[in-house]
Amino acid sequence: MHMTARSIVLSRGILMILASGFALCGARAHEASPSPSPTPIYFSPQTLAELKQLQQAALASDYAYRQVAHLSNNIGPRLSGSPQAQKAVEYVAAELTALGLDVRTEKIMVPRWVRGEETAALVEFPGQAANTTQKIILTALGGSIATPAEGMTANVVVARNFEELQSLGREKVAGNIVVFLHTFDKAMAVQGRGGDAYGEAVAYRSEAPSAAARLGAVAALIRSVGSAEFRLPHTGSTNYAEDAPKIPAGAVSSEDADLVASLVPQGVVRMKLVLTPQTLPEVESYNVVGDLKGSTNPEQIVIVSGHLDSWDLGTGAIDDAAGVAVSMQVGNLVKQLKLQPKRTIRVIAWMNEENGLRGGRTYAIDHAAELPNHVAAMETDGGAGHPLGINLRGKPELATVLKPVAKVLQEIGAGLLNKVDHAGADISPMEAAGVPTFSPFQDSRTYFHYHHTAADTLDKIVPRELAENAAINAVWAYALANMEQPLPR
Amino acid sequence: MHMTARSIVLSRGILMILASGFALCGARAHEASPSPSPTPIYFSPQTLAELKQLQQAALASDYAYRQVAHLSNNIGPRLSGSPQAQKAVEYVAAELTALGLDVRTEKIMVPRWVRGEETAALVEFPGQAANTTQKIILTALGGSIATPAEGMTANVVVARNFEELQSLGREKVAGNIVVFLHTFDKAMAVQGRGGDAYGEAVAYRSEAPSAAARLGAVAALIRSVGSAEFRLPHTGSTNYAEDAPKIPAGAVSSEDADLVASLVPQGVVRMKLVLTPQTLPEVESYNVVGDLKGSTNPEQIVIVSGHLDSWDLGTGAIDDAAGVAVSMQVGNLVKQLKLQPKRTIRVIAWMNEENGLRGGRTYAIDHAAELPNHVAAMETDGGAGHPLGINLRGKPELATVLKPVAKVLQEIGAGLLNKVDHAGADISPMEAAGVPTFSPFQDSRTYFHYHHTAADTLDKIVPRELAENAAINAVWAYALANMEQPLPR
Repeated sequence: MHMTARSIVLSRGILMILASGFALCGARAHEASPSPSPTPIYFSPQTLAELKQLQQAALASDYAYRQVAHLSNNIGPRLSGSPQAQKAVEYVAAELTALGLDVRTEKIMVPRWVRGEETAALVEFPGQAANTTQKIILTALGGSIATPAEGMTANVVVARNFEELQSLGREKVAGNIVVFLHTFDKAMAVQGRGGDAYGEAVAYRSEAPSAAARLGAVAALIRSVGSAEFRLPHTGSTNYAEDAPKIPAGAVSSEDADLVASLVPQGVVRMKLVLTPQTLPEVESYNVVGDLKGSTNPEQIVIVSGHLDSWDLGTGAIDDAAGVAVSMQVGNLVKQLKLQPKRTIRVIAWMNEENGLRGGRTYAIDHAAELPNHVAAMETDGGAGHPLGINLRGKPELATVLKPVAKVLQEIGAGLLNKVDHAGADISPMEAAGVPTFSPFQDSRTYFHYHHTAADTLDKIVPRELAENAAINAVWAYALANMEQPLPR
Repeated sequence: MHMTARSIVLSRGILMILASGFALCGARAHEASPSPSPTPIYFSPQTLAELKQLQQAALASDYAYRQVAHLSNNIGPRLSGSPQAQKAVEYVAAELTALGLDVRTEKIMVPRWVRGEETAALVEFPGQAANTTQKIILTALGGSIATPAEGMTANVVVARNFEELQSLGREKVAGNIVVFLHTFDKAMAVQGRGGDAYGEAVAYRSEAPSAAARLGAVAALIRSVGSAEFRLPHTGSTNYAEDAPKIPAGAVSSEDADLVASLVPQGVVRMKLVLTPQTLPEVESYNVVGDLKGSTNPEQIVIVSGHLDSWDLGTGAIDDAAGVAVSMQVGNLVKQLKLQPKRTIRVIAWMNEENGLRGGRTYAIDHAAELPNHVAAMETDGGAGHPLGINLRGKPELATVLKPVAKVLQEIGAGLLNKVDHAGADISPMEAAGVPTFSPFQDSRTYFHYHHTAADTLDKIVPRELAENAAINAVWAYALANMEQPLPR
């Protein structure tokens, strides 16, 4: 999951991708059985029976887990433009073809940013033993420019927030390295509002380097955007503003931010910083698109998706091999159960969600003429935690219409219908065309521990919970593809 | 905290430093007030009143926290023989002198092992994209020899335990890198038996390299001894056996051990390994010893202590700046409250607990003649978690004798008397002379998350809990120093 500066501007202070506790409906198994209703029938008894079959089959299958394992362990980190990203494109295309889907790869151009050396140390600080340093553990932010190859050494100033940076002014900032101390709100994350905490912190990841550069800073470091405290830096894209010089940008571990914060008030603190990433020319890459053709309305499309690219520090298991795997599983299960959706279910593995969103944007442009026929689009990009229900963006009446599907999923504790402002980064470019968008509403308490770090690895996936996410994807995708009439939009 | 191969042999399968659920006595506040008893009086009403004063003063003071902060943040990692270890000796000696203690530094010789480069990657594995590797995050074990500077590349074999290594035999092991998969038992740690889980896992850290070398392995890596899963390797000493070639030895993060374990059954896995630590000549270092002279029996001694050296990856806040700080606080509080212990309270900051135990061993030799006059020795070396009571090693009747002190500490939930086989590494050499030994019995649920890692940093200290540990140290040290008669031994 990524959040751009633009999406922050659009949604500052309101609900983010994962967020919102506003449950439109918590369907309960003990509710009365259907009675005559003025609303039209969307889901036939046969469809509802098939949804239950899909749900059971998803929970019994390890197909999705094996996909996450292959993408994470056998292929590894998949940053856009990397050999691993290309290998993943080929792997997923081959797997979907083997399942019997109509598969194509759709070309996009992606940025190619390559991490380099990244080390830092405090070389001068109060109380230090002669000829010693304090190591600073950090990582370059995606898109960062490099320091000189031999590094740079400068005094450190700290700012708790943008206001404090402004109050320091050019006099205290120019020529120095600024460390921003904004702290990811762990309590919010534990309470299911990790998206809000993320949004607040990402404002610094996106905008702090340019804010510091406008006052003459030579580099900007943020306290990592994340909830873990295991000396683990969290990467993610930064966004250089056009009106500011570009300066090297990194994220330090929470411990190292705290260390700097404790030493700076005691006296002079100097840091040596080496960050040597490179921005190479853009390269060709691909969204992988696999269709399960609809039997009666093949031109009408329901997308189920995740993104294939990942950050480069970990192996991208939760962000977002999991989303790709549960989407592939929809194709696998529908084929395995020999179900026949009326509309086309389109499985997409997006490319470049993390540092450009080129996959989602290019798709919305290339398929603009067909978007009125896109009945719905789903994306799973919040890890593989137990799903509580579904997030949805669309007309208020969706909640009533979709209740019967939620009721099926209530059997596995996934029956909430949760209205959100954005349901997924890659599918957000379709929102303007009025496509209703969906994503699993997941338990995200630990997501921001691992997100964008070296610890985003296979062991973070709980097989049963991944299968629950496969179930919610299969049930919703098939339900939306088999409705008696399209959703109101 | 460290555990040597020797201590494991002595205590395999029984209780380790932190361990034992065998509570001799859980003194309760509602017990009947003292009645005539056949046991002699050990603690006068005045002493008991002073213990309460000390307890309150410890909880109200931030002195110990400031010491941990200085040792961790201003001095930093303090591996034996390092400039930081020397700076820490000077700092603690100066601080104890400033408090008014009689201070001396007692010379010891310590090993000087210096970490070098440490990187590893899987360079061949099933499913890999061309020209890619999978990064392996690891750290050298203390005392490890180096690989060639340019590294070594070899096939990887895995062994779940020593028995599986033997069953592989020389044919499958020779020429390869062995990865041991023994998994630290997190459930044990959560249940307060972290010492047992640690002991089981440390057997691999100590003995696995030589076991692999006997079968011709070229390097040995263990799954990290610890409970955190944040791609964090845990260092600690290894012990080369005399009958085996020395081979490079490291610990990989739990994630990387899992990665290797998942790939090896699929086909050939080759690893490039670079570990370049150096073992330099031994250097002079010091235990810091500060006496609060006793008023009536100055020759009788009660030790309160922690160890000043730390591993080099983190800043050694929980292991063991905390132990040094709460020991220093005993000196501070007794002086501040103008109390006059009958016996001498000796504050010791030990050197070289982690990779040699030279401080504790040298003290026991140099002070052998005085050990009969060592009434008791305490060491805090299990972090700074809430103390539940006191661990003690000595005669069974200690439990009855010491009940009144436990009762004072029950007010802060620290009243358990917990019999153990060893109460602290540095004080264990005194056990042979019959010196009763003590340590705080601490909540260690998270201790093995951070222990011996880069994440052993100041933020892991909860100020209130550190103060509780200072209270238990001050109360016990003063109680033992002010008893009406010495403990039975």
